[in-house]
Amino acid sequence: MPREAFVNGRYVPHAQAAVHIEDRGYQFADGIYEVVTLHNGALIDEELHLDRLERSLGELRIAMPMSRAAMKLVARETIRRNGVSNGIIYMQITRGVAPRDHKFPHKTCPALVMTTRQMKPHSAKLLAEGAKVVTVPDIRWSRCDIKSISLLPNVLAKQAAAEEGAYEAWQVDADGFVTEGSSTNAWIVTGDGKVVTRAAGHEILNGITRISLIKLIESQGYTLEERSFSLDEARVAKEAFITSSTSFVLPVTQIDDTPVGNGHPGILTGKLRRHYFDFMTSAGDPI
Amino acid sequence: MPREAFVNGRYVPHAQAAVHIEDRGYQFADGIYEVVTLHNGALIDEELHLDRLERSLGELRIAMPMSRAAMKLVARETIRRNGVSNGIIYMQITRGVAPRDHKFPHKTCPALVMTTRQMKPHSAKLLAEGAKVVTVPDIRWSRCDIKSISLLPNVLAKQAAAEEGAYEAWQVDADGFVTEGSSTNAWIVTGDGKVVTRAAGHEILNGITRISLIKLIESQGYTLEERSFSLDEARVAKEAFITSSTSFVLPVTQIDDTPVGNGHPGILTGKLRRHYFDFMTSAGDPI
Repeated sequence: MPREAFVNGRYVPHAQAAVHIEDRGYQFADGIYEVVTLHNGALIDEELHLDRLERSLGELRIAMPMSRAAMKLVARETIRRNGVSNGIIYMQITRGVAPRDHKFPHKTCPALVMTTRQMKPHSAKLLAEGAKVVTVPDIRWSRCDIKSISLLPNVLAKQAAAEEGAYEAWQVDADGFVTEGSSTNAWIVTGDGKVVTRAAGHEILNGITRISLIKLIESQGYTLEERSFSLDEARVAKEAFITSSTSFVLPVTQIDDTPVGNGHPGILTGKLRRHYFDFMTSAGDPI
Repeated sequence: MPREAFVNGRYVPHAQAAVHIEDRGYQFADGIYEVVTLHNGALIDEELHLDRLERSLGELRIAMPMSRAAMKLVARETIRRNGVSNGIIYMQITRGVAPRDHKFPHKTCPALVMTTRQMKPHSAKLLAEGAKVVTVPDIRWSRCDIKSISLLPNVLAKQAAAEEGAYEAWQVDADGFVTEGSSTNAWIVTGDGKVVTRAAGHEILNGITRISLIKLIESQGYTLEERSFSLDEARVAKEAFITSSTSFVLPVTQIDDTPVGNGHPGILTGKLRRHYFDFMTSAGDPI
């Protein structure tokens, strides 16, 4: 099945999927995106992703390129044409094409791109050993709550991780507190079993997996604290993990050179991962 | 003469100039750019722009897409094909096309786009009245010295200016000091005639017009101070102006609701603008 992308109203072969050089996404990073998980043929938390997509657009005053209902239809048709059952659908919206000028153009149609791809489950090795994270200073802008394509600092952070053989980089603010990973939210479990993750604000992206896991933590009767935690606290935590639409709930067993807890994936983390998979299996929106 | 762009090795009609949706410039703002002035058929400070281009690429570890000599030839051919004599040439380089993944791809060819366009001189009204600037908090990342296409905060700042009928927005750091405009450097002239602009560092882009004007200020015997100045100091300055490859040296006569000096373009600013035009006329590199 040849891969196809949706680009500004048409389904096109992936290799020929192109946008104009003056699309403001290309010249100004003037756009936003979402990544939605496809689990056993069902979209996970699609409505929450579209809520956030609309919020990001609203913060940048970019119009929806089509109605929400139409977006959902296009997502489904893109998935159908590519025969994807487990993986992701990627949606990107930019302010559209206009002669290069920083300020918003007077008249422009928002650009919409969707792609989808099958993804493999995490390797048994990664799940057995847990992920390593490195830490880097958080050098990003002050509006990380907007899921913008202005991702250069995230790219540099992820590359720093890759060069250390790590899965992710945790970004640390000027006060020594962990903000989040380059494409994941950061969590720890304290010695007395409390699950801690930074409160949503301008400093982090409020992950959809984060939101759903918070609900699961509460419904399962675990104790949650939404607060900042320092790198020092993380280093002596009992467990640690990360969440995202492609990481789900993934144990972290090493922070820089320090093993987390006993160096093995945490027991509570394992439970939360299973709860999250149960949630995906039961709550997904079949397409 | 139909407009043409250079895109990844080919000269193409502007309307059809396109890049792949997985060009990392489009998905990650993973690229850099330069804007070089074309004044009376000559490129202004081309070598300094290419120095900075190479520096930006080096900071991001993106390879040059072709030799510097080849870049210069392509720039000239792009200008020739478009018949531009006064305006700009825009050069953008990204890390290239690769399946979406934050970290650097193992193998990818940097993408190169060049466009050029004729520009009109500033209006007599703007030069007679001077420019208004508004002020906004500087919300950008910590590596503004890299001329990256990760420009979303700059877009928002320029839009804030446009909505107030202003030419530019001066960004102000957490300590109350002006960093720079959204696409220009910021300058003041103190009551005792010293020209002040922020020292180059990670907080600002070291403008090429800034660099050349500093040389002119020194060669003309004026007093220069490269240091941070606060918004409070700017409000009581004798004169103010901005510099960039398209603004040259442009007087600022209003900061938010406060007139600068007597509310008219400053005398020293006018002299510096004339010196800069003399410099462009004599020092440009004919193509």
